Amino acid sequence: MTDIIISLTVEDIRFPTSLEKDGSDAMNKAPDYSCPYVSISTQSGISGNGITFTVGRGNNIVCEAIKLLSHLVVGQDFNSIVKDFGTFWRTLTSEDQIRWLGPEKGVMHLAVAAITNAIWDMWAKRESKPLWKLLVDLEPEQLVSTIDFRYITDSLTKEEAISILTEMKSGKAGREEEMKLAGYPAYTTSCAWLGYSDDKIERLCKEAQAQGFTRFKMKVGSDLEDDKRRAKILRQTMGPDNLLMVDANQKWEVQEAIDWMRELVHFNITWIEEPTSPDDVLGHAEIAKALKPLGIGVATGEQCQNRVMFKQFLKAGAMQFCQIDSCRLGGVSENIAVILLAKKYGVPVCPHAGGVGLCEYVQHLSIFDYICVSGSLEKRMIEYTDHLHEHFETPCKIRDGCYIAPETNITRDQLMVHLCICFKKLISTHSIWSLGTVLT
Amino acid sequence: MTDIIISLTVEDIRFPTSLEKDGSDAMNKAPDYSCPYVSISTQSGISGNGITFTVGRGNNIVCEAIKLLSHLVVGQDFNSIVKDFGTFWRTLTSEDQIRWLGPEKGVMHLAVAAITNAIWDMWAKRESKPLWKLLVDLEPEQLVSTIDFRYITDSLTKEEAISILTEMKSGKAGREEEMKLAGYPAYTTSCAWLGYSDDKIERLCKEAQAQGFTRFKMKVGSDLEDDKRRAKILRQTMGPDNLLMVDANQKWEVQEAIDWMRELVHFNITWIEEPTSPDDVLGHAEIAKALKPLGIGVATGEQCQNRVMFKQFLKAGAMQFCQIDSCRLGGVSENIAVILLAKKYGVPVCPHAGGVGLCEYVQHLSIFDYICVSGSLEKRMIEYTDHLHEHFETPCKIRDGCYIAPETNITRDQLMVHLCICFKKLISTHSIWSLGTVLT
Repeated sequence: MTDIIISLTVEDIRFPTSLEKDGSDAMNKAPDYSCPYVSISTQSGISGNGITFTVGRGNNIVCEAIKLLSHLVVGQDFNSIVKDFGTFWRTLTSEDQIRWLGPEKGVMHLAVAAITNAIWDMWAKRESKPLWKLLVDLEPEQLVSTIDFRYITDSLTKEEAISILTEMKSGKAGREEEMKLAGYPAYTTSCAWLGYSDDKIERLCKEAQAQGFTRFKMKVGSDLEDDKRRAKILRQTMGPDNLLMVDANQKWEVQEAIDWMRELVHFNITWIEEPTSPDDVLGHAEIAKALKPLGIGVATGEQCQNRVMFKQFLKAGAMQFCQIDSCRLGGVSENIAVILLAKKYGVPVCPHAGGVGLCEYVQHLSIFDYICVSGSLEKRMIEYTDHLHEHFETPCKIRDGCYIAPETNITRDQLMVHLCICFKKLISTHSIWSLGTVLT
Repeated sequence: MTDIIISLTVEDIRFPTSLEKDGSDAMNKAPDYSCPYVSISTQSGISGNGITFTVGRGNNIVCEAIKLLSHLVVGQDFNSIVKDFGTFWRTLTSEDQIRWLGPEKGVMHLAVAAITNAIWDMWAKRESKPLWKLLVDLEPEQLVSTIDFRYITDSLTKEEAISILTEMKSGKAGREEEMKLAGYPAYTTSCAWLGYSDDKIERLCKEAQAQGFTRFKMKVGSDLEDDKRRAKILRQTMGPDNLLMVDANQKWEVQEAIDWMRELVHFNITWIEEPTSPDDVLGHAEIAKALKPLGIGVATGEQCQNRVMFKQFLKAGAMQFCQIDSCRLGGVSENIAVILLAKKYGVPVCPHAGGVGLCEYVQHLSIFDYICVSGSLEKRMIEYTDHLHEHFETPCKIRDGCYIAPETNITRDQLMVHLCICFKKLISTHSIWSLGTVLT
């Protein structure tokens, strides 16, 4: 039986986060967290929503890109798509004229992410499950059929992916219970944005500890003395045993990254995130090699454009922490591919979140990762920031510094607001930021 | 004295090349060669034009991206820009909200290319010189100031770049004369598009030889037996001593590329172009290593997104032929950076051309490369295709299979139609393809 997709609309949603310097770092001085918001529906009345994330200007360009791709979606049979999702996904990334605009990177890939996420949302709603539960319940062969393996078979074949998933079937039920009760560990980035004062950093760190957080990330890279002073405040406030990560947001040259981090080594840093260009696999490998004796790992991924780049970062030892992004990669499907690649190379996945809706997304990916792929929480944690959750019908739930798995025992009607991304009172978000325009 | 840029407009130009299967290959079945066409002008009345290239659908998205960047250009002082072009260029690629949409890749970088090319065109016009002559006459320090060295200093510093240019000053005048008289070697891609019949291939190859061409490229990658048959026809028609290159347009997996090329080795292939994903540095390195004993080099670059990727391809021995693209990289400035990087690693630059306007562009870059950087024509050639030149006021001139350097001894009025890109009767090109819309 077919169920034809009859509509796809996109809206340009923006939040004025720059007013409070939320999200400020060495490269992003004043972001306005934004998203194109995709809604699709089928003739039988199933609907799905998906977003990708931007930091303000240009959000409309991604909306236009989604409109450009919409002819590949509307008119397609939803049931056929989910039977062979990997093949459908390739039609989105490989349309023979549009492909030139990427391929599989930047604006066009952000657009693919929003559409792919909307279709996964629709699938989860049809099954009356949260996304993580849909993923967990799929048979290995079925799950792997949602992935496009083009350009990664030299590192991971479809057969290897099925083996990984099959081997990890043992113990799944126990891990699922654990995710519902204790949840998946989080770290917070909200205490130490670059634009925050020393007093604010100290106060927010204390508040976060009171809420149960034991892992903290600080923005660095504009001024070394500032970084030392802020790291000292954080380390003193959080104590010697909690984890401290730092994030340079691509500010440095390769050698500069090595030199700068040598100056911060006494603060016991777990990772340096985005030390240089997100495209520089060999540069990251060089930095990783130099910092290994100091006990500092390299983390990157929030601007890593696709699975081909992740494959190389993993293969070259250029990342010790793999930061998938639910909206930079081409949606849920490509994220699953990278989670499996990371397993192959023994690298922990620590998703990028924050922004708008990213926390709501990545909890599903990490919970799936734990239950079906990694089976381990060692060196693993999801980023958390405390912005903009109030705009969602069902914000993510943090308890004692952990993401608690979204509920499964709910009705179809409730599910309409539970899965992936559904904004609360969509119209009111438009009034927040007048630049947003409605595109259909 | 200041000269403020007072306007920037962009037009969406498309040509229906898919009707004749011109430009067809393993990944681009039916391209419609297109370009956003940028026009800028200053208060003193100087103007410049620049393009980037796409293959049809989505050309409007790049036009929108150019409009998004235009606030960084209009209102700026043209004289200040050319005094410190590298810094200005970084404002285009690093605007703190827009950067998220790349960074420096895909749609946004294509937009940067069109704007940058327009400014270089304006500069050349102000100096009453063709672009290549402007580049050749700039002092090393001045030329290098047009480059943004961010993320490449681990391979090439500003000081090293100046040294390269200074050392090559000797013999410049002689090489300039040579370019005006004999020109820069070309190879042709026009004989063997994937959609052409065997008869057409044979006929076009004979015609090209009669015109003086001795180097030919064939599209491969859809069917191995077809490729063998077509290679045989070409090799028989062109004889044993002429050069034959093949181009897979990213069709293969890493191992598949190696296996496929082993089957074609008897046709004496100079290079395999784009064997796999343009993002896969390590994959290309593996292919290059496997094909080296067979005497086949790896060529890539037309979809290599920026200088950071070229740096890695060169460093890793992943490309034996460096195919810069005048419109994929961020315009003239970033192309100069890559030409200098290639010199550092001893890799010949063989620019990608064809499309619309690319032949008109890259001749300037290669002529500069020969006179000021490489000083050699060994293993070097510019791609040539014979499509769409009739739409330009001053099409490139090919004689005996070589690009002849555009004239220098012309008046300012003539220059308005000589430099970089200027369309003949712009309005008539609009009527060719009704999808084109005018954006201002």
